[in-house]
Amino acid sequence: MKNWIKADDNYNVVLSSRIRLARNLREIPFPDKLSEETGKDIVKNIEDAFYSSSYTEENYKSKYLWMNEELTNRAYYEKHLISHKLLGNYKKSAFILDNDEVVSIMLNEEDHIRLQCITSGFNLDETYDLANKLDNLLEEKLDYAFDEKLGYLTACPTNIGTGLRASVMLHLPALSMNNEMVRILNVVGQVGMTIRGLFGEGSKAEGDLYQISNQVTLGLSEEEIINNLKAVVAQIIDREQWSRQQLMKGYKYELQDKVYRSLGVLRSAVLLNSEECLNLISNVRMGVEMGIIKDVDVQVLNSLLVETQPATLQLISNAKLSEKDRDFSRAKLLRKSLGGNDLD
Amino acid sequence: MKNWIKADDNYNVVLSSRIRLARNLREIPFPDKLSEETGKDIVKNIEDAFYSSSYTEENYKSKYLWMNEELTNRAYYEKHLISHKLLGNYKKSAFILDNDEVVSIMLNEEDHIRLQCITSGFNLDETYDLANKLDNLLEEKLDYAFDEKLGYLTACPTNIGTGLRASVMLHLPALSMNNEMVRILNVVGQVGMTIRGLFGEGSKAEGDLYQISNQVTLGLSEEEIINNLKAVVAQIIDREQWSRQQLMKGYKYELQDKVYRSLGVLRSAVLLNSEECLNLISNVRMGVEMGIIKDVDVQVLNSLLVETQPATLQLISNAKLSEKDRDFSRAKLLRKSLGGNDLD
Repeated sequence: MKNWIKADDNYNVVLSSRIRLARNLREIPFPDKLSEETGKDIVKNIEDAFYSSSYTEENYKSKYLWMNEELTNRAYYEKHLISHKLLGNYKKSAFILDNDEVVSIMLNEEDHIRLQCITSGFNLDETYDLANKLDNLLEEKLDYAFDEKLGYLTACPTNIGTGLRASVMLHLPALSMNNEMVRILNVVGQVGMTIRGLFGEGSKAEGDLYQISNQVTLGLSEEEIINNLKAVVAQIIDREQWSRQQLMKGYKYELQDKVYRSLGVLRSAVLLNSEECLNLISNVRMGVEMGIIKDVDVQVLNSLLVETQPATLQLISNAKLSEKDRDFSRAKLLRKSLGGNDLD
Repeated sequence: MKNWIKADDNYNVVLSSRIRLARNLREIPFPDKLSEETGKDIVKNIEDAFYSSSYTEENYKSKYLWMNEELTNRAYYEKHLISHKLLGNYKKSAFILDNDEVVSIMLNEEDHIRLQCITSGFNLDETYDLANKLDNLLEEKLDYAFDEKLGYLTACPTNIGTGLRASVMLHLPALSMNNEMVRILNVVGQVGMTIRGLFGEGSKAEGDLYQISNQVTLGLSEEEIINNLKAVVAQIIDREQWSRQQLMKGYKYELQDKVYRSLGVLRSAVLLNSEECLNLISNVRMGVEMGIIKDVDVQVLNSLLVETQPATLQLISNAKLSEKDRDFSRAKLLRKSLGGNDLD
């Protein structure tokens, strides 16, 4: 299974598949109730359980948010490796990361354990198998808070039961252009799913990127949750592909124009804010996926989704940057990555 | 003296200088009153007078609007070689053109003779000398309508007296950005001058191109008219240069951004309408003149000002084109001329 950012396959429409399991330790208060000291003890306990095999010891490492610079932590967030909530708990939170950055086991997020796997492409079954394997490994050594009737207990009742959230990140430029997204959002809501933007809950769908995930965690098996999501996502993919074909049939030149201009601007702008950048990358991605643009790699576009975010951008530039300086550095990075003008 | 479109010098701010003399033949009704047949006789009379020397016979040729396709005539208009009025009189109008396309003597425009010279750069004196020389040549052979008190008589009283209109085509992007043009328009009006767009009377100042010319033709000598215009134009040039420097000091990145994005779009668009095209060319021209862009030639931009116009574009493409097809061909021409994407 491949890291979604580094994958070099051209996965049309689907960027990544994500599985997240919420788990807690029995008879220990939920993280928000823990002092910094006890919180760190919990981190230590879970680490001991996890690193008890030589396999995990070699392939995983722990990151302690309380020891990092804020920018470093924010850059992990921008890579989708940790959540906003984990950042908020930075005085007592940590995460365990594999070498490929596919697995991230967040400790002292909203729950004691938030085990997540994100892989490239439309790949929910395999991703779930990996998460399940790691969950079993932890469960062997730890005493999970589990109720025979309710299932896994969680800090927020919306996660109770399986503690499973499965999600798929989709790139839906044609459906956005067609104004079909409102209808799709309604339909998806009616079948117990939810759609969010690039950075999850509360984030706008910048760059035509949408995360669709299950809303219900209780009363369904893990398999049912995943199969339902797969069915809905498959339909949305079909609809997006169909809409792209329709656009190409009816508006070929307009589509080429939009796509090539976007690439032209990314290759030449000197100042570029985050929102415009995501939207232009979206257009170029569509162009690449539709075979209109042939000299740009989708992998480069994935990397740029992350590298153009504020914290990562500052880490790459090795400097604290004001908003305007970031717009300048972002544009410079884009020109360099996409073979544009060199101003220096 | 050079043709303004083909000149390879980089004339900052000033694109061209133009002198136009209005003349009529004594005791012959003005062109609007002439039948087609009599109109053509007048053309013949003036031609006979003009081609009486071997010099003019070798270096000039006549173009008869009634013999040309409409597109061909319109393309001369787009090159600024003939006026809208001459096009309207196409059933009896003609013009005499020199090999360099600097001189155009329009016959049966509003007046029997509209002698114009357009040269590259800020060059009114030399341009007037040339027009004057040709005017003398005609006056030797023809009986001009001339009144001792009023001077040259013309169809419209606004041209009476010297019959002289001197004008300079200016590129004023910085003054446009600064919103200083309104003030300048007022000031210029107060000193008896007028400002118009790229295509003269009634045309908008697309592409930040402005023609400034004398309003008054009566009561001043030719020399006074030209010197007044030169003084006003020199001030506007200074002001534009100063504004560019201020922009560069205060908004360097924003300026670079505007200029490079414009070039990026011109090099990548697939559909481009005439107005956007002129505006983007204006930004690129400013970039070239300010030394921001180094790999684009001003001469190419001059040619594009003409070649991207509807009739010329259709002649180049050798096809009748709908508006959308023109947008497509215009974009293609731009990409080719500026070293952009090749989609084929």
